[in-house]
Amino acid sequence: MKKSLIALAILSNFAHADEGMWMPQQLPQVAKELKAAGLKLDPTTLTKLTEFPMGAIVSLGGCSASFVSPQGLVATNHHCVYNSVAVNSTKERDLLANGFLAKTFAEELPAAPGSRIFVTSAVTNVSDKIITADVAKLQGKARIDAIEKNQKKLVAECEKEAGFRCTVSSYYGGLEFYLIKQLEIRDVRLVHAPPAGVGKFGGDTDNWMWPRHTGDYGFYRAYVSKDGKAADFSKDNVPYQPKHVLKLAKDGLKEGDFVMALGYPGRTNRHRLPSEVAFTFDWNYPAFVKASGETLAIIARETKDNKDVALKYAGQVAGVNNYYKNRQGMLDSYAGSDFLARKTAEHEALKTWVNANAARKAEFAGDIEQVEKLIAERDADTKRDFFLGYAQPRLLNTARSLYRLSNESTKADTERKSGYQSRDLPRLEAGITSVERTYDEKVDKALVLNSLAKYAAQPAAQRRASFDAAIGIKDGMSQADLSAALDKLYAGSKLADKAERAAWLKRTPAEFQASKDSFIQAAVAMYPDSLKNEAEDEELAGKIQQAYANYMKAKIAFMKSKGQAVYPDANSTLRVTFGRVAGRDHGADGTTWTAFTTVNGVVAKATGQGEFNAPANQLAAIKAKDFGKFVDPKLKTVPVDYLATLDITGGNSGSAALNSKGEFIGLAFDGTLDSIISDWDYNKANTRSIQVDLRYMLWNMKHVDHADNLLKEMGAE
Amino acid sequence: MKKSLIALAILSNFAHADEGMWMPQQLPQVAKELKAAGLKLDPTTLTKLTEFPMGAIVSLGGCSASFVSPQGLVATNHHCVYNSVAVNSTKERDLLANGFLAKTFAEELPAAPGSRIFVTSAVTNVSDKIITADVAKLQGKARIDAIEKNQKKLVAECEKEAGFRCTVSSYYGGLEFYLIKQLEIRDVRLVHAPPAGVGKFGGDTDNWMWPRHTGDYGFYRAYVSKDGKAADFSKDNVPYQPKHVLKLAKDGLKEGDFVMALGYPGRTNRHRLPSEVAFTFDWNYPAFVKASGETLAIIARETKDNKDVALKYAGQVAGVNNYYKNRQGMLDSYAGSDFLARKTAEHEALKTWVNANAARKAEFAGDIEQVEKLIAERDADTKRDFFLGYAQPRLLNTARSLYRLSNESTKADTERKSGYQSRDLPRLEAGITSVERTYDEKVDKALVLNSLAKYAAQPAAQRRASFDAAIGIKDGMSQADLSAALDKLYAGSKLADKAERAAWLKRTPAEFQASKDSFIQAAVAMYPDSLKNEAEDEELAGKIQQAYANYMKAKIAFMKSKGQAVYPDANSTLRVTFGRVAGRDHGADGTTWTAFTTVNGVVAKATGQGEFNAPANQLAAIKAKDFGKFVDPKLKTVPVDYLATLDITGGNSGSAALNSKGEFIGLAFDGTLDSIISDWDYNKANTRSIQVDLRYMLWNMKHVDHADNLLKEMGAE
Repeated sequence: MKKSLIALAILSNFAHADEGMWMPQQLPQVAKELKAAGLKLDPTTLTKLTEFPMGAIVSLGGCSASFVSPQGLVATNHHCVYNSVAVNSTKERDLLANGFLAKTFAEELPAAPGSRIFVTSAVTNVSDKIITADVAKLQGKARIDAIEKNQKKLVAECEKEAGFRCTVSSYYGGLEFYLIKQLEIRDVRLVHAPPAGVGKFGGDTDNWMWPRHTGDYGFYRAYVSKDGKAADFSKDNVPYQPKHVLKLAKDGLKEGDFVMALGYPGRTNRHRLPSEVAFTFDWNYPAFVKASGETLAIIARETKDNKDVALKYAGQVAGVNNYYKNRQGMLDSYAGSDFLARKTAEHEALKTWVNANAARKAEFAGDIEQVEKLIAERDADTKRDFFLGYAQPRLLNTARSLYRLSNESTKADTERKSGYQSRDLPRLEAGITSVERTYDEKVDKALVLNSLAKYAAQPAAQRRASFDAAIGIKDGMSQADLSAALDKLYAGSKLADKAERAAWLKRTPAEFQASKDSFIQAAVAMYPDSLKNEAEDEELAGKIQQAYANYMKAKIAFMKSKGQAVYPDANSTLRVTFGRVAGRDHGADGTTWTAFTTVNGVVAKATGQGEFNAPANQLAAIKAKDFGKFVDPKLKTVPVDYLATLDITGGNSGSAALNSKGEFIGLAFDGTLDSIISDWDYNKANTRSIQVDLRYMLWNMKHVDHADNLLKEMGAE
Repeated sequence: MKKSLIALAILSNFAHADEGMWMPQQLPQVAKELKAAGLKLDPTTLTKLTEFPMGAIVSLGGCSASFVSPQGLVATNHHCVYNSVAVNSTKERDLLANGFLAKTFAEELPAAPGSRIFVTSAVTNVSDKIITADVAKLQGKARIDAIEKNQKKLVAECEKEAGFRCTVSSYYGGLEFYLIKQLEIRDVRLVHAPPAGVGKFGGDTDNWMWPRHTGDYGFYRAYVSKDGKAADFSKDNVPYQPKHVLKLAKDGLKEGDFVMALGYPGRTNRHRLPSEVAFTFDWNYPAFVKASGETLAIIARETKDNKDVALKYAGQVAGVNNYYKNRQGMLDSYAGSDFLARKTAEHEALKTWVNANAARKAEFAGDIEQVEKLIAERDADTKRDFFLGYAQPRLLNTARSLYRLSNESTKADTERKSGYQSRDLPRLEAGITSVERTYDEKVDKALVLNSLAKYAAQPAAQRRASFDAAIGIKDGMSQADLSAALDKLYAGSKLADKAERAAWLKRTPAEFQASKDSFIQAAVAMYPDSLKNEAEDEELAGKIQQAYANYMKAKIAFMKSKGQAVYPDANSTLRVTFGRVAGRDHGADGTTWTAFTTVNGVVAKATGQGEFNAPANQLAAIKAKDFGKFVDPKLKTVPVDYLATLDITGGNSGSAALNSKGEFIGLAFDGTLDSIISDWDYNKANTRSIQVDLRYMLWNMKHVDHADNLLKEMGAE
């Protein structure tokens, strides 16, 4: 499991046993279940975001993490600090391969540019400030515009306090909105990461798999100005002192024990409409899997003789591989399931319930009928633009962002489109100026040409006229024609130059319009049509928002009528999931899964190279049984990873796993391939999260990497 | 697990729970254990070799098999009929890939040249005819010569009945000898083999592994002359009608059920001396593994651009790979074990027991001391000649065999060396004339050069002067010098020509001595020294035989004094092992093993190519749940393979697995990698045999391959 795409999740879900990504404030609703599961804390202690233990839980934006020392030490997954290790690595000092340990604060290294630690300080229900009485009357684009305006207003007010980042998140299909205020720590430093042979042991081969032997942990430290405020990197900054810190568990877990994970799950889709399920699994995911396979093959082909270029695309390859395996895994599960039939039956039951009562019918029936039609429209758009999405040169996208920024910058800040306001500029600029780190013209052109040929083969009515005009696409062009058109386009632009891109960040629309740069010209030419398309999309989105929210309202009422508690679908906000440590009676055919793996398995898998390159000193320590106090009494050796019934998804990576007393007991980092269908259709029999055991972390740190300074800081000694 | 090397096993073993390769006549000794394990037959029925069910059990020479129809249909493993499928395959009609099914007797194909079915008809204790009172007085070479003479005499008498093959096998370290008389059926025909995507599903990757999904079965038919005698292939031959035939089990097995396997295990070494264990695991196996790795790499390098040559070496590659994995697996187990310490302690206990009694001391103590010294001498020889064994050109070995044959042929048949008598000629000639099927000069030279360089780097005193002289080895030769010497040698011989080799089969020693052929000349030059070395080896072997037998006699007496039953180590003779169907609580780290795999796992592993190329029609049948009556009630699908606690080894491949009523229930075909150390040190916790489930065989035959004729013949319909 890799970092999640951060995406607005607009759906909700309903709880049954063994599932649930609970908002902290909801936990008292499931107090009985928590107690039955073994929680020894009072559930209300978990509702207080600024108290222990929730106050120690932070977001890295795409990953979860937690404070584990009073000096701002943050524990998360190795794959969440991976980029920070990579950017600090050189040929001479390969921190990825060898690992990194700062023995003093002074030795800590700046994390990758843009790294953040978000400490949630307040979560406020702002539903009636977003969907005001006036907004409720609006339709289509006007509704979306008004919602965006209200969101921006709340965010701007909230962000008046310097150093904070505020977000309005949608819950329950746009029925509720919460304003989330987070301290945005910008001086993040890399403290420790084990060698990739531990932290990424098993690589893509073991990703989403059990048995697993990955030591997927790493440490950051949060720094702030001397007066305790979020600040850019400075040598004068001091470690952030969190109010609350997780305590390390004294005793190891065993099979059956209570466990919970606290973090920021990205997105689930458990109560989508039947048509959304059908579209996703019968069209969208298969198309994605096919396109991903082609992307990987093209990158492999184009980079095979150039290691530097291969490195530039390593991140994309890892990301595509991850989603490729994820989506294919879901498709495999879907193929053997009755998911769509169940989904359809549930939807029919809802409609029957709605229609059985005149008031309910009047309130909901129209929207329920309407929402399916609207979604069919959206699906048609998605299909039409599928190849187009892959067919745009990277620097054309950059040019379009630059020109949009130039246009938005002529407006007052509050009037600008979300994403182009002052608050968005640092991230936008960082992305635009760092293109060359992940870009190579030859590879980009090969990727674009592959999809452009498919796009161009569509009838003109299915294509976008403004894109065709800008690129020079006509009916019946051969692959060679398309290639020549691309060659001309790429040759006519200087945007591959970093300084050139940076210069465009400051230019006026008139300067763009006068430019002879081919990508800038194309961006300018496409602009009117793209605004028109955006407006059309927003018109549709406004209609969907209104109908979908009402459909979800009906659904929630229906579930409540059956006495079922309801938790919102994941939307990258703080959640709690609880369960127990548990193996599984069905593993690969002919096997079952035990709850724990051990260092014996590291030795068995170690090959001395590639994905299974366990460090020699670790193997020696295992061979010598240099285990210290980290031996599990039943396993007779050091546990590595363990399975639990926790309900997690992408974004939960790095989530602290806590025991029944709320003590830190490991880090969630993955789920198993045959359970990721749970993002759509919770599968009680298969769903297992994978955690790295605290004992493995501490054993490695003490007996292999000699990180005694950190162990002492965390109170492990 | 592949076919075993047929090797004389001279050791014995002592039974404890869950182990034992019992001679059929010994079963009444363990009648209580058999009954406790669940056997419903009277154990004495299993002692009668020519009655049911033992009368149905046959040997293929290196594999085991059994009669499953009154028309001589023989069931065994796919890997035991593999060569017969291969030799009948052409590019146009690839039987390996597509499988083969004779729908009528007329469609059956001749098995690979040299294929045999051996039906044991009598086993007679001839210990006192081999070690007569006169022989008992002899030492060294004289003793070995006398034993060989007695063996040849018994064999010659026994083989007076045409069509029978007789062997004298040594049991209990040369303490006992049995004359085994077998009908040697020479007209063997291929009846059915599933596609390699079933029969070899998983390939080398899954070899020795669990979970396993190999449909490792195939069928031969035995043919005899019209008067029921063993005969060469003839269209006029008729199916052999065995007196006894296995009946198919009506009910499937389940976890915990009694099961036994009847077959011809090749060799075990469970009660070797401590020094033999040390030599094998600390020197011999590591050297073998290293050499095998080099052999595989050289063959891969030399054949990578020539598919025809690669095919010639495919058999050797498969064989080397198999033993490579086997030996490395044993070394891995040995590395983590206290085997040598236990072995040493056991040996000390034996010595203490011997020395505690004057009579015992007088009888045994001298030989126990002596045997270790003699074995140290043998080990030194083995070390010295290790590289020499790999450094001899294939055609030089052929030349040496031809010249030896020419010399032996000048003597009366009874006086000739074993292996060069009339009875041995067909096999010898077949081997010599078929060299080109598995030979390529370039590959052979590369293999020889690699080892020759290591051989030549040894001090002259460690080398063999006659070999050095024949090849032209001198101190300090460079790789280039050696290569040039080999080039000259290969260029000077015509033995690569089949007709030329065939011609030499008939020539006199004088003709050899006059030859200018480089390999013939080298063979002639090396001959006197090789006879001398052989005599020295036999001198040592004679001493070892005497001392070892007496050491074993002491050991057996010691074990009996402790009330422990004793079964002889495997020696390629008929044995019975019994146990139960059982998974294992430790699989790969993080997993356990269930007792059964199912067709679901075939689908999960299937890749559509290479080693996991399950046939499309099989996958379609699984997908369609076209399972008929072969569904296991608990698994809810068709079982494929199952684990059992049976004590088997190489040579047991193809052994019939029988249930508690003696009904046929599948075929043993493999063990698991972490249990093959049991060939030396029985490991109760790890040892599991792997069987293909009869239900999988029958399901495939009925629902996938439509082998209705065979199902009817076996009484499965």
